Amino acid sequence: MAGFRERLLAATQNSGVCVGLDPVPEKLPEALRDKEEGIALFCEEIVRATAPFVAAYKPNLAFFEALGLEGFHALRRAIDAVRQHAPNALIIGDGKRNDIGSTAARYATAMFDHWGFDAVTVNPYLGWDGIKPFAEYTDRGVYLLAMTSNPSAVEVQDFKNHRDHVFQHVTKLAARTWNKFDNIGLVVGATRPERIAQVRAPAPLLPFLIPGVGAQGGDLAAAVKLGFVEGKAPALINASRSIIYASSGADFTEKAAEEAKRMQEAIQQLRKK
Amino acid sequence: MAGFRERLLAATQNSGVCVGLDPVPEKLPEALRDKEEGIALFCEEIVRATAPFVAAYKPNLAFFEALGLEGFHALRRAIDAVRQHAPNALIIGDGKRNDIGSTAARYATAMFDHWGFDAVTVNPYLGWDGIKPFAEYTDRGVYLLAMTSNPSAVEVQDFKNHRDHVFQHVTKLAARTWNKFDNIGLVVGATRPERIAQVRAPAPLLPFLIPGVGAQGGDLAAAVKLGFVEGKAPALINASRSIIYASSGADFTEKAAEEAKRMQEAIQQLRKK
Repeated sequence: MAGFRERLLAATQNSGVCVGLDPVPEKLPEALRDKEEGIALFCEEIVRATAPFVAAYKPNLAFFEALGLEGFHALRRAIDAVRQHAPNALIIGDGKRNDIGSTAARYATAMFDHWGFDAVTVNPYLGWDGIKPFAEYTDRGVYLLAMTSNPSAVEVQDFKNHRDHVFQHVTKLAARTWNKFDNIGLVVGATRPERIAQVRAPAPLLPFLIPGVGAQGGDLAAAVKLGFVEGKAPALINASRSIIYASSGADFTEKAAEEAKRMQEAIQQLRKK
Repeated sequence: MAGFRERLLAATQNSGVCVGLDPVPEKLPEALRDKEEGIALFCEEIVRATAPFVAAYKPNLAFFEALGLEGFHALRRAIDAVRQHAPNALIIGDGKRNDIGSTAARYATAMFDHWGFDAVTVNPYLGWDGIKPFAEYTDRGVYLLAMTSNPSAVEVQDFKNHRDHVFQHVTKLAARTWNKFDNIGLVVGATRPERIAQVRAPAPLLPFLIPGVGAQGGDLAAAVKLGFVEGKAPALINASRSIIYASSGADFTEKAAEEAKRMQEAIQQLRKK
């Protein structure tokens, strides 16, 4: 199988859109809300409708875990739906897992062998021996949290010394020390566009996964400009709620498709600039 | 229900031992290795045998997730076994979860409502809004990773400015800003005993969860001395492999019980000093 970078380049040729799958029972369209397997059906429908416009899907494990066993069945069906309807799209298991080496190896088994994700998100707080078991799957991608999109991100990530903030320190480690298998990427929130350049500068060739442009109100133009290194390190720009909950009516698939298409076109326009 | 600190004080009156449940199929005792539901039976037997000596159990979710649905069934049975055989013991869901606020809320639902854990481990890299949804369950505990036990912990956690390392910065935030509901604790590895005092000093009343004394070779005496603030902030000292894999023979329950008892007595001796 091709290395992760080649797979990412192929998946992002015509789109930079990553659709976050964050299903919440109370937010389901009415037609599915009380249906048995409503969550699984919802994920399948969203995938089928948005597939033509999308480079990647990002199921966030929290939303499936909160539902217990029903959630795990829904996650399996969501994954199967992507493989069927969007065979070139990547699936990013967004679990932000992290632990000591021997335990991280079990998470890697869960994420890559059991679920079959093409990439994962990993929290870098434990350093390389907690990242290595994921990175050793050299055909998969490992997006490390550098600068997250939430308001409190600054509390730890902006701790700084005379030279760097923590998020820059993590970025430098990622680009210069940890990227041994050419499959490390970075999670970089779009909610602080003025900071994205501080992540890009020390990591000129790492792929970015960029959350925060949808419901969180981040800056799409800045995300595309600094996120995409064309032909080398394409970005995935994630939107979850703004796409999957574009409508709660009977037209939820159409509205989700419209929103995914609108975002795909906007990103492609900006990429050409 | 009593607050987390009272529950912790009650659970640790006669023991500071936390048994980590990290089941790996290849390491099961031979009698269980090829048995259907071997993992579930193993967890149940370990719990039943060690219950008299233990303050808490800490299932590490990675080891259950790696087994797919069978793992989730085994986790449920392990939890039920603790409630049956050790009704005063706490169960710590060790998942090191972390995400933005709206997602962290779903993880809190999974860990506290679905699984029913008494406490969880959380990675603090995202700051307060990723911690708050857990802490708002005020009868449960939230152990934040401060200084982990693995060799690479230094890479990010020891990044420092003129005053503090990152792990001290996190500790100060935990003690002074984030402990709004009196249920925040800290994960402090025993593998760098010289550093434990640097975590205790700024957090004189936070409970510690201390991994690293078993297979990882950490310093038990230092862990007890700095970990326990008697009557106020008792520590949980975790050992996983050294207890649950004390023997792979037919005597695995006896050997696990012996090792748990040995550790319980050693900790109680040290607490009295």
